[in-house]
Amino acid sequence: MSFKDEITGWLMQLQDSICASLEQADGTSVFTEDKWTREEGGGGRSRIIADGAVIEKGGVGFSAVHGPTPAFLTKEDEHAVSSGISSGSTFFATGVSIVIHPQSPMVPIIHMNIRYFETSDGVKWLGGGIDLTPHYVSREDARFFHEALKKVCDSHDPAYYPKFKTWADDYFYIPHRKETRGIGGIFFDRITSGDPIVFQKQVAFWKEVGETFVPVYTELIRRNKEKVFGEKEKNWQLLRRGRYVEFNLVYDKGTKFGLETNGRIESILMSLPKYASWQYNFIPEEGSEEAKTLLLLKKGQDFLT
Amino acid sequence: MSFKDEITGWLMQLQDSICASLEQADGTSVFTEDKWTREEGGGGRSRIIADGAVIEKGGVGFSAVHGPTPAFLTKEDEHAVSSGISSGSTFFATGVSIVIHPQSPMVPIIHMNIRYFETSDGVKWLGGGIDLTPHYVSREDARFFHEALKKVCDSHDPAYYPKFKTWADDYFYIPHRKETRGIGGIFFDRITSGDPIVFQKQVAFWKEVGETFVPVYTELIRRNKEKVFGEKEKNWQLLRRGRYVEFNLVYDKGTKFGLETNGRIESILMSLPKYASWQYNFIPEEGSEEAKTLLLLKKGQDFLT
Repeated sequence: MSFKDEITGWLMQLQDSICASLEQADGTSVFTEDKWTREEGGGGRSRIIADGAVIEKGGVGFSAVHGPTPAFLTKEDEHAVSSGISSGSTFFATGVSIVIHPQSPMVPIIHMNIRYFETSDGVKWLGGGIDLTPHYVSREDARFFHEALKKVCDSHDPAYYPKFKTWADDYFYIPHRKETRGIGGIFFDRITSGDPIVFQKQVAFWKEVGETFVPVYTELIRRNKEKVFGEKEKNWQLLRRGRYVEFNLVYDKGTKFGLETNGRIESILMSLPKYASWQYNFIPEEGSEEAKTLLLLKKGQDFLT
Repeated sequence: MSFKDEITGWLMQLQDSICASLEQADGTSVFTEDKWTREEGGGGRSRIIADGAVIEKGGVGFSAVHGPTPAFLTKEDEHAVSSGISSGSTFFATGVSIVIHPQSPMVPIIHMNIRYFETSDGVKWLGGGIDLTPHYVSREDARFFHEALKKVCDSHDPAYYPKFKTWADDYFYIPHRKETRGIGGIFFDRITSGDPIVFQKQVAFWKEVGETFVPVYTELIRRNKEKVFGEKEKNWQLLRRGRYVEFNLVYDKGTKFGLETNGRIESILMSLPKYASWQYNFIPEEGSEEAKTLLLLKKGQDFLT
């Protein structure tokens, strides 16, 4: 079996097991599957859950697509560094992408993505990330989340967590609001090595990131799903989701790429919430839980202490 | 009084009279004003209405800003046509912008904008547009709306309506949905003339566009506000507003420009609805009113017949 077939099979199994665990955590709703094919080559299976006891709207997408390498990937970047991909090459890309919008404002929104990209001229890139968007930031939950990610990172390379945490802070940022999307997490791209032993270890790390999603998120659900909330918290959740929509439509690179390359629109916008809200110049009361959360939506927060 | 002062005063009065008429049409809610200043020069007054009997969320913004001309305006465009603006120049821009999201799905969303732009090296541009986004397209209302715009256009230049209607079709378009935002209207930009008599006539047309907003929209409110609707129609309204958010955040040039140039974010995003919704792959029942509306959200529809 080729490496790409092995990775593809592993990702499909990961999607299966994540969906099964999320159904169990939700308790009432199940995923429906939407299979799709891409005209230019490949396809995917989008799995959608809605109106559950815990999850209001969520998607777990798998895709594996191939074709001629898009021109923007064969160009030099702004630092005149070549991607190493020749313009006549073909590419193969596969990944699993998740966004879960819970019913309760006390349960955080989560996003996870792991992806593998290779070209016919030998480029092999691993990328991915997990980030958490609590409507209300709990210090304990934030520490639990970042500790879990640090543990996965540290077991492979002590340089990973600080580097990938900063990368997430920079990536999941809404410049026009001067806010991070949530409490960040880790983000990485183009992890690769010419040394097969090193690359094998990188693949092991990358797989562990994917496997971290279920234990971490089901624990965050368990901790928070019974918490009492009222209209005030629900309203705040809708406003925070408005920010999530702003980030995804204006800044998210995956969304942008999908929209610009005529991608499968429903799968690209699977990340948007069932309901979101905008209110003119909403400023939370000083000292309120909402105001405290806003103060923490900044780059460079240390959530481990 | 300079031309720019005259225009600025006229726009402020237009904002006043539009707000008064909208308050009267709503019947229960009134505008609150938020004055702001721009660090680089100028400012504005944002007027917001919310939770009224007819209007769920609406904004009528006035602004008048000035400063060094942004670099992108002094460049040649993709056809190597110079804007005629030198890079050392200063600019002045003033306008009124409106977006109204009604409570009832039977009342259309409306948008209107008129703007004037001049530079220290003598450029004078008039721009603007009105477009309508009914949640349900009524042929009679669409005809009424387009006839009113055609009348304003025709009284100045018979070439205006066909040209500006097509421009609106092209501008208010959501490529990733292959849908127009609504039933269009008119859109125009950089209207100007070196001949003072001609320019004076262009200004008269531009003012009439601004004055057309109130009679047209209050009539559309009157026709539709008592219409009965249920949960199905409300749900459809929220989905259509999701599309409105997609257009404004991904494609609208004013929004993009505002986000990229560190504009006043609350005034820029005043156009977003109080509530919006996304549902995975929602396909309306064949032959339903929702499906009929979708069929009409295409470029090049003739709403005059």
